[in-house]
Amino acid sequence: MVDGLRTTFTNKQHSVTISRELPTVMIGERINPTGRKKVLAAFQAGDFEIVKTDARAQVEAGARVLDVNAGVPGGDEVDLLPKVVQQVLSVVDIPLCIDTANPDALEAVLKIYEGKPLINSVNGEEKSLDTVLPLAKEYGAAVIGLCMDDNGIPASPEGRLAVAEKIIQRTTRLGIAIEDIVIDPLAMSLGADTKAGRVTLGATKLIAEEFGVNMTLGASNISFGLPDRKMLNAGFLILAIQAGVTCPITNPLVSEIRTAILSADLALGRDDYAARWIKNYRSAKKA
Amino acid sequence: MVDGLRTTFTNKQHSVTISRELPTVMIGERINPTGRKKVLAAFQAGDFEIVKTDARAQVEAGARVLDVNAGVPGGDEVDLLPKVVQQVLSVVDIPLCIDTANPDALEAVLKIYEGKPLINSVNGEEKSLDTVLPLAKEYGAAVIGLCMDDNGIPASPEGRLAVAEKIIQRTTRLGIAIEDIVIDPLAMSLGADTKAGRVTLGATKLIAEEFGVNMTLGASNISFGLPDRKMLNAGFLILAIQAGVTCPITNPLVSEIRTAILSADLALGRDDYAARWIKNYRSAKKA
Repeated sequence: MVDGLRTTFTNKQHSVTISRELPTVMIGERINPTGRKKVLAAFQAGDFEIVKTDARAQVEAGARVLDVNAGVPGGDEVDLLPKVVQQVLSVVDIPLCIDTANPDALEAVLKIYEGKPLINSVNGEEKSLDTVLPLAKEYGAAVIGLCMDDNGIPASPEGRLAVAEKIIQRTTRLGIAIEDIVIDPLAMSLGADTKAGRVTLGATKLIAEEFGVNMTLGASNISFGLPDRKMLNAGFLILAIQAGVTCPITNPLVSEIRTAILSADLALGRDDYAARWIKNYRSAKKA
Repeated sequence: MVDGLRTTFTNKQHSVTISRELPTVMIGERINPTGRKKVLAAFQAGDFEIVKTDARAQVEAGARVLDVNAGVPGGDEVDLLPKVVQQVLSVVDIPLCIDTANPDALEAVLKIYEGKPLINSVNGEEKSLDTVLPLAKEYGAAVIGLCMDDNGIPASPEGRLAVAEKIIQRTTRLGIAIEDIVIDPLAMSLGADTKAGRVTLGATKLIAEEFGVNMTLGASNISFGLPDRKMLNAGFLILAIQAGVTCPITNPLVSEIRTAILSADLALGRDDYAARWIKNYRSAKKA
């Protein structure tokens, strides 16, 4: 296995480094109107109080990067996304993950963002590579690469490794450092196919071993259509971290998720003196 | 990685097969007076009702093998252990794991046991190898091999692999099939040394890859001296299963443990149609 790479994101004043030798970094997923009617309605009304509350709460719960998505149906993302980013940064002082499928909205944020954000995301489709990577290069951002391309999402670990390789080649060819690529092997629903977890975990392991890149995952897809979702997501995240995921996109407000990630870090020797484990236990007792 | 081996234990009428392609088998740990004053007092008084209750409850909660230990300080284990085994088998019809450091007590049970039990345990010490292995051979039992020898418990994964190799060599040289050896890489307290988990998981992976043997683990040691033990044990078990543990010795009555094991099985593609996951959820809702 190659050595694990170190990826650093920054905002104006602070940085977060991600590496398999360091504690897992939670990227908070909550600032996203998808499936959250209250957030959607607030965005449409130009009300950002809920965004600020969500930002503060996630950071207090241990998120060290926040994903920011403003994809409102019929909304003007080019106008809205930079506003949401500014609102978030007015209350929390951590690096952001800019989550949009709209290249104009992405560039509007990159123009105002002070520091080095994470772009969510590029994928192996030609159109995506041609649009997103030059922006990442121009603004010095890191970028999440999704393991799918013009043929869809490969059904095998080896197929996803091949897409990761293609994204890494295209990115580094532009002069972006391999450290600045974070691969997402994609988690699919175990409810639809009980072999889906094995494919995702197998891909994670292959990609981590081959390239040493940092890896992310939106683990909650895995439990779609199944009961007891929190516990399943938590268990899957533990496996994903062992396989090579270093910065999952998740909900830090769910105690099962937070505790699962901390247990994996402690068991894998990434929590010196069990300090974070004990701190989480004490905070939970107080709450 | 070599293919995973299949190990089968039996009692008079039934068998349980353990393999990394099949769901994880929980070996119930509760029939053990160590640290359980009520059980200790009952054993001393010749009262086995608590044993029967524990046996039934563990099997109802999903244990498919039961560990049986009758190590009472000052007690006559040679007399007591066969009695406890008979009491257990009078209420549950599954294979047993005979847990004793006393070779006479072990032989007393092997003489009356109908089927192929699991012996807990042999280790790499010369005295242990010379005493336990001939009994396993004579009575056709499978045997747990602990990764420690006359020099103690090795501090590195490679050291534990070497002890496993020694036990496997000595066992197979006697004509016992390698399938009938179940290796325990030993879990030490993360409270004492936060690198302990990494050593155990590393050893598990090395041994599983090198020999393909089934592996067990008493995961609860890992959390000794730390808070929130159930969640830490649960998280560690998930990692251990991914690394190669196929039949942990654990407490199936703890829902966090049971759910963690089921989440790992589902995520690793060992729970077709998520049937066991859904069944556990429904039982928990009813309870």
